[in-house]
Amino acid sequence: MKTLNDYKAALEAYLEALPISGAPDILRQAMRYSLLAGGKRLRGCLLLAAADMAGEGGESALPFAAALEMIHAYSLIHDDLPAMDNDTLRRGKPTSHVVYGEAVAILAGDALLTHAFETMLKSDHPRALPAILEIAAAAGVGGMLAGQTLDVTNEGETPNKELVLRIHEGKTAALLTAPVTAGLILGGADNGLVRAGRAYGYHLGLAFQIVDDLLDLKGDPALMGKTLGKDLEEKKLTWPACVGESQARRDAETHIRAAADAFAPYGDRALFFRDLAFSTLNRTH
Amino acid sequence: MKTLNDYKAALEAYLEALPISGAPDILRQAMRYSLLAGGKRLRGCLLLAAADMAGEGGESALPFAAALEMIHAYSLIHDDLPAMDNDTLRRGKPTSHVVYGEAVAILAGDALLTHAFETMLKSDHPRALPAILEIAAAAGVGGMLAGQTLDVTNEGETPNKELVLRIHEGKTAALLTAPVTAGLILGGADNGLVRAGRAYGYHLGLAFQIVDDLLDLKGDPALMGKTLGKDLEEKKLTWPACVGESQARRDAETHIRAAADAFAPYGDRALFFRDLAFSTLNRTH
Repeated sequence: MKTLNDYKAALEAYLEALPISGAPDILRQAMRYSLLAGGKRLRGCLLLAAADMAGEGGESALPFAAALEMIHAYSLIHDDLPAMDNDTLRRGKPTSHVVYGEAVAILAGDALLTHAFETMLKSDHPRALPAILEIAAAAGVGGMLAGQTLDVTNEGETPNKELVLRIHEGKTAALLTAPVTAGLILGGADNGLVRAGRAYGYHLGLAFQIVDDLLDLKGDPALMGKTLGKDLEEKKLTWPACVGESQARRDAETHIRAAADAFAPYGDRALFFRDLAFSTLNRTH
Repeated sequence: MKTLNDYKAALEAYLEALPISGAPDILRQAMRYSLLAGGKRLRGCLLLAAADMAGEGGESALPFAAALEMIHAYSLIHDDLPAMDNDTLRRGKPTSHVVYGEAVAILAGDALLTHAFETMLKSDHPRALPAILEIAAAAGVGGMLAGQTLDVTNEGETPNKELVLRIHEGKTAALLTAPVTAGLILGGADNGLVRAGRAYGYHLGLAFQIVDDLLDLKGDPALMGKTLGKDLEEKKLTWPACVGESQARRDAETHIRAAADAFAPYGDRALFFRDLAFSTLNRTH
């Protein structure tokens, strides 16, 4: 069985060599700066593993895995802009607009999004179209962009479960579900397996975001010791702020069990996915 | 023969009724504010006419025409942002970021781009994939985004023909060529006709931009009477600034003749396109 590291290595090599032809130098540089900035590559690896699970060996799913990483990178560039979260550091490096200026950062985000589609459309994969649609819908107005909009426009609101759930479904779960469903579709999976993959991705995504929120509480020295109180006080739109820290941890565990259960009928074929789900609970970064 | 107004009416009705499902209200409003702000609908109408010319009657090309208008609208929203051109008015109305704030304007642009792809992918058109690829490539790093980047990063440079041509090829010609080629592909045209359409769109696009530049000179009261000198003085990246006003007009005429010539072998079938090309020279807005 291939491991997460196997998929990650193949994907990194593909991204490093990705053609970005016709782009002015500064645009290509800005795109690569954000695209090759490391990270877990969780979205791309999930897609490769899902295509594998459905019986698609080899390289044919790589353009789609790369596209997911491009979409993730674009969303981070635009998220970090002064008009949005105004972040100057990401993964220890200056954010795109700090390095290239706001105008080029906006364009680099636009370019990564567009190039994601161009790369998938050029793949010549026989099941490209339904797979691209999964990814477009997850990145679109009913998915990631719904989450981003609700997040940005409700800043400072008192957190409530319904709102926070909608934000997490959009911002996180949609783009962890699409890799699984798109990968399965590329691999020729039947409807039942794609349905199981959709449930898996949804619950993995929600668990992932809750664990993220919990890690943020612990990771921020300013919050040390007064975690939940501070989060509530700042009205951050996190799950722990809605239900408390220990309930949030229990909810993450419930989602992980639901994710694993979704793939239970597929036994050893789904081992990668069950392992990944349980490892999410033990994330430290 | 259908007229530009016939196509425009069909397209406006389609855009007005376009589903944007799952989007938070504010995002849907911001998308519709820019998408339904009027304009010539040249890109969408070109696509409908090209699909017609190749034998595709009816409604099946509308999602693609709408997608082009969404891509055009997204590019204008991002172009108008404070970090880019910092425009507060477009077609006499406040720009998106003035009405909705910068964060929602950025997201509305992202959403229109993504929704363009989602709309095309959901069309179920048998020739969707190669048509979407034409549009993605035109909007992408080798097309519109190349032009935008060169424009933004060379502001204040002394205009030269090579640079200005590359900007116009990207910013204008790419997104006037793709409607023609994508429309022809949707209609089932053979390679020869698509090739002719590519030449037509390219020359129409360059002529269109030169006429735009000339109209800008005349339309801006501050420039009245000192048109070219002022343009050169401000180092605007326009064609008249490179070659002078009367040579620019001659170049526009040359491009229009080249556009018409490209479709000459197709006789009356291409009448719509030849009429449109010549009318470009007489634009007043």
